[in-house]
Amino acid sequence: MDKDRIFHDHRGGKLSIALSRPLVTREDLSIAYTPGVAEVCLAIADRPELAAEYTWASHLIAVVTDGTAVLGLGDIGAKAAMPVMEGKAALFKKFAGVDAVPICLDTKDPDEIVDTVTRIAPSFGGINLEDISAPRCFDIEARLDAALDIPVFHDDQHGTAVVVLAALRNAMRLTGRKFADLRVVVVGAGAAGVAVSRMLISAGIGEVTVCDSRGILSRERDDLSPVKAELVEVTNAGGLHGDVTTALRGADVLVGVSGARLEESAVAGMAEDAVVFALANPTPEVDPEVARKRAAIVATGRSDLPNQINNVLAFPGIFRGALDAKARNITPAMTLAASEAIAGIVAEDLAPDHIVPSPLDTRVAPAVARAVRQAAEEQSGAEAARHLAARAAD
Amino acid sequence: MDKDRIFHDHRGGKLSIALSRPLVTREDLSIAYTPGVAEVCLAIADRPELAAEYTWASHLIAVVTDGTAVLGLGDIGAKAAMPVMEGKAALFKKFAGVDAVPICLDTKDPDEIVDTVTRIAPSFGGINLEDISAPRCFDIEARLDAALDIPVFHDDQHGTAVVVLAALRNAMRLTGRKFADLRVVVVGAGAAGVAVSRMLISAGIGEVTVCDSRGILSRERDDLSPVKAELVEVTNAGGLHGDVTTALRGADVLVGVSGARLEESAVAGMAEDAVVFALANPTPEVDPEVARKRAAIVATGRSDLPNQINNVLAFPGIFRGALDAKARNITPAMTLAASEAIAGIVAEDLAPDHIVPSPLDTRVAPAVARAVRQAAEEQSGAEAARHLAARAAD
Repeated sequence: MDKDRIFHDHRGGKLSIALSRPLVTREDLSIAYTPGVAEVCLAIADRPELAAEYTWASHLIAVVTDGTAVLGLGDIGAKAAMPVMEGKAALFKKFAGVDAVPICLDTKDPDEIVDTVTRIAPSFGGINLEDISAPRCFDIEARLDAALDIPVFHDDQHGTAVVVLAALRNAMRLTGRKFADLRVVVVGAGAAGVAVSRMLISAGIGEVTVCDSRGILSRERDDLSPVKAELVEVTNAGGLHGDVTTALRGADVLVGVSGARLEESAVAGMAEDAVVFALANPTPEVDPEVARKRAAIVATGRSDLPNQINNVLAFPGIFRGALDAKARNITPAMTLAASEAIAGIVAEDLAPDHIVPSPLDTRVAPAVARAVRQAAEEQSGAEAARHLAARAAD
Repeated sequence: MDKDRIFHDHRGGKLSIALSRPLVTREDLSIAYTPGVAEVCLAIADRPELAAEYTWASHLIAVVTDGTAVLGLGDIGAKAAMPVMEGKAALFKKFAGVDAVPICLDTKDPDEIVDTVTRIAPSFGGINLEDISAPRCFDIEARLDAALDIPVFHDDQHGTAVVVLAALRNAMRLTGRKFADLRVVVVGAGAAGVAVSRMLISAGIGEVTVCDSRGILSRERDDLSPVKAELVEVTNAGGLHGDVTTALRGADVLVGVSGARLEESAVAGMAEDAVVFALANPTPEVDPEVARKRAAIVATGRSDLPNQINNVLAFPGIFRGALDAKARNITPAMTLAASEAIAGIVAEDLAPDHIVPSPLDTRVAPAVARAVRQAAEEQSGAEAARHLAARAAD
């Protein structure tokens, strides 16, 4: 890629603020600002729910990072993380018309991150956590989700999981297999690996085995973080112990979300019609040429190869749908619906080199938003019905 | 004003995010986001000063409030404050092309406010504090100004002071008096009152006397906050004690920044050619009709009367100038320069009903920005020269 163009296109940043209405006359000024604006403030003070109608906050996402796990670059800090967060905000706007503002934090302390985001939350309608390193990200997300009445979503976890599941669904359609019969190996137990594993399990994958840099997550291991120990409870049904090659022997699917490098010998033992998702960027876990020799379907995270697994297929539509439904959380039912919507877009022209839509396909975000909104509304409808039934039973 | 139009014009909020460049092709995407953006992140990680060139943060202002002193409405909370903060951000953009984002905080604790703003500071190039109640605002501003390497400016204090001083300068031109000969009474010792008093003193006003709701700030008072006690040290040279009417006897100028109501009898004792700035909104401290009977020049905060003292004359240009100069603080020299620039705009068509420019006068912000930038650069030049001289002397 042309480095000069990259820097040229970043000069001055990638975002700016626009006014929703012209501000030209004295009357415009006295409506948008004093004295007119006071009417709106008083109305919201009186009925806080009016904030959703009369402020941008209710449809504004904070893209929050502490700069500890930026792309594959690691802990580069808050200021250096900003170009990625601006890019993310640009994608929110471009694909789903969602306004988003980057918030790069000058702290890595989980308590301080939770406190800070909680305190700025009235300024926003949703929180997209981004590039916060594992295992801190799990706790931070869970605490914020519990504390706030707006959706909180760690994209590196759930965005990746949603797109992986969509791609896998289409890969299985192509190769005529069922989720329940699959053996999937997830290589990587960071933010993405944990979320992908959990989502695959909840989608009904027969057997999931997870590897970190020291090998298979198994009961024999005494070096597991609490999150990894929890994963062992619901994965590795085969009771495997050992390295990635051991895990991959006879496996149907490899999902690489680690940045590890796997040799051809590691994938050579996979089952027939294997599926390899090697998602590390810029260097996939398995060389794509090698993967193609060994697997029926290959996907990567790269934009210059077919089947790009890119979170942009998920997060703009997911937040759009959540905002449209005025959802307070982004639930598993909503991410599952998002995943199915993404898979559905390529239903008609499904092919081994086309199991996910292009990241530029503008049909995706609206379809995801609709599906997510519907799932949210069904869920809140079901909750309301349960609530009514419980009342009636009293 | 038409209430329906006010609410109509606030629907959905007043701001949105815009992309600085189109995001259409796969190449656009791979530049604005992965993998291209990584180059920019790495460059900034290596040389943090590049953030100023390649992110929007360096020219983005956070308009920060805790919602405790919103307009004249008082403590209406973070969510209800948002329409004012959006309006402020809109004015920043409209008049000075400065991008600004409202941050409404869910805390009133000064320590938490300072911590929170410090932690989100890498996302911004300047902090505009807004509608934070006195006396908390003084401490919060001072601590943030010391902690951060970006400009921090409490507009309710300094913005008001800048415009009052500009108006007073022109009023004195018209009535042929000198600052050194003036007796000024400031009614109100909140954020604006304290800052106006300090700025008038530093501009060379002969005698400033300050009143709060209990009367003149004097040494006899034992109920003064530390900030008010400090003010007594540099004001009330006449050693007055008593109520506002006492203070105003023979005074040349009344600056009302309190919301108090003064009867005609209170202003009746003022000197000949008196000047009355009754800035409370929407109800001026002195009825404008009454003031006009008693004073040679009258100004208010209202948009439907002549001589509107409006902070919008100051803050957009002040931040524009500070950002352009890459200033780390907004110094008294810079606010003084801003004040002179505002006064200068009406130099040619000065009249008793035209001592300040219209808030819609688009010449103001660029003139203020130039003056502020020049003051900042002269100051940093002088500092550099002092630094060099000190080195040479070593």
